[in-house]
Amino acid sequence: MAKVCILRLGHRRLRDQRITTHVFLTARALGATEGVLCGERDESVLRGIEKVSEVWGGKFPIRYEENWQLFIRKKKRDGWKIAHLTMYGIDFRRVLLKKKVDKCVVVVGAGKVPQEIYELADYNVSVTNQPHSEVAATALFLDRLFGGKELGKKFEGKIRIVPKACGKLVVHGKNSLRDINESD
Amino acid sequence: MAKVCILRLGHRRLRDQRITTHVFLTARALGATEGVLCGERDESVLRGIEKVSEVWGGKFPIRYEENWQLFIRKKKRDGWKIAHLTMYGIDFRRVLLKKKVDKCVVVVGAGKVPQEIYELADYNVSVTNQPHSEVAATALFLDRLFGGKELGKKFEGKIRIVPKACGKLVVHGKNSLRDINESD
Repeated sequence: MAKVCILRLGHRRLRDQRITTHVFLTARALGATEGVLCGERDESVLRGIEKVSEVWGGKFPIRYEENWQLFIRKKKRDGWKIAHLTMYGIDFRRVLLKKKVDKCVVVVGAGKVPQEIYELADYNVSVTNQPHSEVAATALFLDRLFGGKELGKKFEGKIRIVPKACGKLVVHGKNSLRDINESD
Repeated sequence: MAKVCILRLGHRRLRDQRITTHVFLTARALGATEGVLCGERDESVLRGIEKVSEVWGGKFPIRYEENWQLFIRKKKRDGWKIAHLTMYGIDFRRVLLKKKVDKCVVVVGAGKVPQEIYELADYNVSVTNQPHSEVAATALFLDRLFGGKELGKKFEGKIRIVPKACGKLVVHGKNSLRDINESD
């Protein structure tokens, strides 16, 4: 699967805490490999995501980056493509159909983003041209990039859910994966 | 396309305003037909979504419903299926593969939901069994239900975006659809 770094651009501590957290949780659950927070430094977002990975498993390193331009330029030099999710961009499906993307930084803006990101990005892509949600856009972009395979990703954590038609079944303990015969 | 009502269950005015708004905006952009807000009454969410439909087009009636149990029971009597999105449920793809769903209430919980919804639902479905976001889960559920067709949905509004590889192009005016030769 492609390597994907989710870069949250222009995070505002008071306003965006929950949405930014949802963006990163979605990224982690749907197969992205790392997260980078830009804008206002916000330890509670970083620690929250780290805590989820610790409990639920999977590797999803996340960190704060003060200078997003430098970070993106370095990634480009290292051969990464930059996809900027924006409602003004071209249909993401067209880009994903035409381009083979092995290493991709997905830029997810909060509020109004600086004009510069449109120029730095290799692809300015939209998930519909309607106003909706960067969380939904991140989910659908990753889903199409990974061709749906991300939905079968296995996580080995301290805790896991055994899918049920009604009610809840949570299994605790490091060996949870061996303790249960999965019905799924 | 199937008729889909998105029911936000247990909305909390202070905590959930942005996430609930993102759930409904995502629902509207991705082809759902109506929205129902349950939990705390919140005019600003309702008015915000109505305003988006007014400006960007499309029909997406939204309203507050005090008694969600009554609402769901009535929908069931009218032949609607109830799909409850929960990380504890069975893989949504399995349900959508096996069942033909014409009219569906998608229940999207905020915080901890009452046990009763698990029993009222025809399907308790998960979009992965990892913690992530009800916005992402709503997006992926609708995308699979509609088979991706929702991404091509046309909206006739007072304003529209012409997709661009770099920068922004917004067209205003009622006749915007006729004024522009789409490059897309």
